[in-house]
Amino acid sequence: MALCNRDLTLRGKYKEIAKKTCHLHSGHDGRCEEFPYLSDFSINHPRVANKIKRDSTKTTGAAWSSEDAGPNRIDRWVMLQSDETLLNYGINMAGLKPGVIAKLREKSATYEDCMSVAVKLTWLAYQMPDAPACPESIKVYLEARIGTMRANSTTCIICRSPLSFSLFENAQRGKAEIETAHSSPREHNERNVGFAHRECNIAQGNKTLDQFYDWILGISNRIGKEKI
Amino acid sequence: MALCNRDLTLRGKYKEIAKKTCHLHSGHDGRCEEFPYLSDFSINHPRVANKIKRDSTKTTGAAWSSEDAGPNRIDRWVMLQSDETLLNYGINMAGLKPGVIAKLREKSATYEDCMSVAVKLTWLAYQMPDAPACPESIKVYLEARIGTMRANSTTCIICRSPLSFSLFENAQRGKAEIETAHSSPREHNERNVGFAHRECNIAQGNKTLDQFYDWILGISNRIGKEKI
Repeated sequence: MALCNRDLTLRGKYKEIAKKTCHLHSGHDGRCEEFPYLSDFSINHPRVANKIKRDSTKTTGAAWSSEDAGPNRIDRWVMLQSDETLLNYGINMAGLKPGVIAKLREKSATYEDCMSVAVKLTWLAYQMPDAPACPESIKVYLEARIGTMRANSTTCIICRSPLSFSLFENAQRGKAEIETAHSSPREHNERNVGFAHRECNIAQGNKTLDQFYDWILGISNRIGKEKI
Repeated sequence: MALCNRDLTLRGKYKEIAKKTCHLHSGHDGRCEEFPYLSDFSINHPRVANKIKRDSTKTTGAAWSSEDAGPNRIDRWVMLQSDETLLNYGINMAGLKPGVIAKLREKSATYEDCMSVAVKLTWLAYQMPDAPACPESIKVYLEARIGTMRANSTTCIICRSPLSFSLFENAQRGKAEIETAHSSPREHNERNVGFAHRECNIAQGNKTLDQFYDWILGISNRIGKEKI
């Protein structure tokens, strides 16, 4: 699917190092839009739309309220810039603790990857068991971008149990029961993201999904042997 | 094994609601001691001795530095007192968030349970693969209290892999690689405690060990079915 890709007007602090383009199909009618596929959620499920935008594009930060936590909820692509460039924008990386720097840099991703993550998450949200029906025009768009949609098919990428849309929607910021998760924690792109239960995400920790499964299989084997 | 149980002099803020007794065997020679079995660790591995004392007797608190975190590293038996009594000691439970209150109350335990946890943890630490040799008099004491010791037998109570004494000893406060863990997170007593890897402890979360194993077996089954 070819996208319009026209540059949209940038606002805010980082406009000179950021990017924002139209994600409608090329040759579309009407105004350009960055998140056209979120039009239904934006009106009828604004929390869901906001969470998808936030998780796709921002470094996380619910627990980052202390003084030395570093910049909070910053665009992921800003974190691709050098320490020197960031200093021009008031972010003094040299003044942060090594662990904080590592976390921030780990969350970095290109604008394009963030945008594809937003599409993927929207595609997954509409396939949650109790999700609202997906308007036809949005379905056509999402299927062209990601693939065929099957109702009730979205499961936790970690424990593989179904995920409830209402549980997802009712989440409070910083207390979400369902979170955006990564098969490999350090790659923020369409192939690598999905949704997961908060407790599954915590259990996975810094492991890749493959490492996590190897780990639990090892435990299962050791427990099994003890029981025999 | 009958203990001396003589009351020892109490110091500090909570002395009127606390307890401190001699844990040497009854009829012992010399001075009374609260932690006689920690004499070797106290001299030769003071970090280990301090960690065992702290984990046995105090509510945890590494991440509790903020204003609304409530009292930090308080004796677990103090948390058995009523809100009214605690107010007399400057702890205003009514002013804390419900989640903080629940966490504090959850960590409460009797003095006796805390003391038996300290014995159990010492018994386990000496059985870690690369632990120092246990002095004979301490071994006799620990075996009388808990049971026969087998060198190299201490494993993570969650993943069941061996735990290294040097990894345990080198832990910094708040960054321990090996933590005190509970088979059932809300019971602090001898039968229910052991050591675990930090990441295993995080993965277990609020689940009991049985619930945790059921959970990972469920995941293993779902993964297995998908692969067939």
